[in-house]
Amino acid sequence: MRSDPIELAARAARMPSSTIRDLLAVTEQPGMRSLAGGLPDPAAFPRDRLAAAAATVLGSDGGVTALQYGATDGLVRLRTLLAHAADLHGLGPSNPEAFVVTTGSQQAIDLIARALVDPGDSVVVDDPCYLGARQALVAMGADLVGIPVDDDGMRVDVLADRLRAPAFRPRVVYTVANFQNPTGAVLTTERRDALVELAHHYGFVVVDDDPYHALWFDGPSPIALGALDDDRVVSLGSCSKVLAPGLRVGWLRAPSWLRDTLVRVKQACDLHTSTLAQAIAADVLADTPFMTEHLSRSRSAYARKSRVLAEALQGCGSGRAPRGGMFLWRHFHGADTEALLAAAIADQVAFVPGSAFAVDRSWTAHARLSFATLDRAGLVDAAAVLRSLVDRGAAQVAATPA
Amino acid sequence: MRSDPIELAARAARMPSSTIRDLLAVTEQPGMRSLAGGLPDPAAFPRDRLAAAAATVLGSDGGVTALQYGATDGLVRLRTLLAHAADLHGLGPSNPEAFVVTTGSQQAIDLIARALVDPGDSVVVDDPCYLGARQALVAMGADLVGIPVDDDGMRVDVLADRLRAPAFRPRVVYTVANFQNPTGAVLTTERRDALVELAHHYGFVVVDDDPYHALWFDGPSPIALGALDDDRVVSLGSCSKVLAPGLRVGWLRAPSWLRDTLVRVKQACDLHTSTLAQAIAADVLADTPFMTEHLSRSRSAYARKSRVLAEALQGCGSGRAPRGGMFLWRHFHGADTEALLAAAIADQVAFVPGSAFAVDRSWTAHARLSFATLDRAGLVDAAAVLRSLVDRGAAQVAATPA
Repeated sequence: MRSDPIELAARAARMPSSTIRDLLAVTEQPGMRSLAGGLPDPAAFPRDRLAAAAATVLGSDGGVTALQYGATDGLVRLRTLLAHAADLHGLGPSNPEAFVVTTGSQQAIDLIARALVDPGDSVVVDDPCYLGARQALVAMGADLVGIPVDDDGMRVDVLADRLRAPAFRPRVVYTVANFQNPTGAVLTTERRDALVELAHHYGFVVVDDDPYHALWFDGPSPIALGALDDDRVVSLGSCSKVLAPGLRVGWLRAPSWLRDTLVRVKQACDLHTSTLAQAIAADVLADTPFMTEHLSRSRSAYARKSRVLAEALQGCGSGRAPRGGMFLWRHFHGADTEALLAAAIADQVAFVPGSAFAVDRSWTAHARLSFATLDRAGLVDAAAVLRSLVDRGAAQVAATPA
Repeated sequence: MRSDPIELAARAARMPSSTIRDLLAVTEQPGMRSLAGGLPDPAAFPRDRLAAAAATVLGSDGGVTALQYGATDGLVRLRTLLAHAADLHGLGPSNPEAFVVTTGSQQAIDLIARALVDPGDSVVVDDPCYLGARQALVAMGADLVGIPVDDDGMRVDVLADRLRAPAFRPRVVYTVANFQNPTGAVLTTERRDALVELAHHYGFVVVDDDPYHALWFDGPSPIALGALDDDRVVSLGSCSKVLAPGLRVGWLRAPSWLRDTLVRVKQACDLHTSTLAQAIAADVLADTPFMTEHLSRSRSAYARKSRVLAEALQGCGSGRAPRGGMFLWRHFHGADTEALLAAAIADQVAFVPGSAFAVDRSWTAHARLSFATLDRAGLVDAAAVLRSLVDRGAAQVAATPA
């Protein structure tokens, strides 16, 4: 009749870990050149502007706003700025009341999972899929259904086919419509229209996770799903890639029928997101001249790094040049990228093998290579190691069916 | 077959809201003198020291530690400081690996609920009980069982009696052993010993939520539950009451069999707590001379305010003087404190009626009065309003059985 510690731990361990974050332990070894994490380039952090913001918010009103408990849905000033920051989300002017500030956009995914998913519910995700989303959804007992992603984003036509079966009624469809993680694909306007139409017809909620929105290379991405529809689409965004992940300031914009429920769920999770971090973010976002210049600089820097890595890898695997975001998705035909990773780590280079993002397909010959973190020399260096390993057949060594 | 938005919202709304936080909306009205929230006195925020810390952490190592993604369990520097900060938790020197930094101690309660509680599981809590804990536990489907709190804390003898029934096997016993919220009671050493013994015998986990640990008035509280036992006790603490709630930096110390599971759960919730807030907290906690002086000043200030409110209320309800923390728990014999609250709000005074903390008992004649937020004049003023209302019989007006 006693509950055994071991049994309790085993039960609790049903919660899956994240391959990428486990990999981070390896990538933190000195000398490791990491193409693995989605860590922004520290050179892109607007450190001086953030330091000025910290001094400002701790200096005004006795620091009360930044230091006291705050409302669960976030500081009004930040929500008002977000509601009009089309640069960051493409949603067009919105009602600040529709926004909820979250502890990073990871929390937004978790709140949605907690509010809408019961054990055994079907949830549709991109295949391959962002790991953090899979983790939060599986933790709530979601039965994940992967819909393949091609160069134009999620195959909404495949989803439409699946929905013809009356037994298949997902509650939520999760996608990264812009610069998808890991593939970099951008969902076409036609597919966006079709997805919203399916959401209305079949009554599911579309979650559009859009952390890379502002980091486009050649031009802004197509109209946001949340701009097409504000009744079935929840739009997620984050300061992590445009200011700094250490703030843990993200947001969601939810339909009015769902928004207050998500706030209640958040209340039980952490009462509210750091008011200090929110006030700092608001101070910087309110500085339009700075943000315009900063975003423009960030876009150029990431676009340049993307080209550096793609050129250094020429002939080593294949894949399209990304139009934004932080990742190259590379196909090493006939290879096993887990074997390649093992060999690469021995040579102090890390990346994420495709299998880590797998839902229904295996993606064993793919790899996600982040160009965000390393500088130019580091990218060239890491690419040279991978070329050499692939040339020597390292990716074939342990190739067995997964 | 369609999932209806209204139905989805109704399902999601099974998540209860928090009476106190709903009340906060009222207390934010201009002119309101609030004894309601557990908001620290802004005058106690070490604003200048926090501003200096922000400048330091954003200035060192290019700001990378404070701005980049970090490990889910928290910054090593902060965990190492916490492991030796006996002033803050009374645990004695611990292994930093046993600590996990959380987004406030609210998140720690939520992580434990997610890791250990399945729908229908019995969870024992103080009666009356801290609202945020109830909210997080109920959200995971816990079947709450209230054990009465008296002047010496949770009635562990009553718990022992209940446990004689073989069908009653709680997974978790949650208590605030020091300066309990809302009663201010301190669990005696004898009851602490007995509770740990029961935990071993019946195989449950004791969660000791200890946010007011450092805010004792006459002398430190008895030996911490986590110092008695590190295999069945999870100890929670927070920077909210000793530095500032806006940081959202709390912590837990967990047994080794449970700790990594909690880290995995946290990963899905928010990846990690703000590294900026963690680095700022660590910079201040490392400044021992400052912290010694600051804690001593905070204790004196709260002890003084506690006396001010108790004296101003003399003859108006009854209750013991608290030995620490932030609350007076007051019994208005034969009265209905919800009716009193309604009258008080009309006179611009707010507090939390006992019913808000009720688990199995109703507590309709009790009220929690926080002396933490208002200054001396505000406390005297608010107490005068309550005296006048009670003298005029306002608490009796709408008195009907709840």
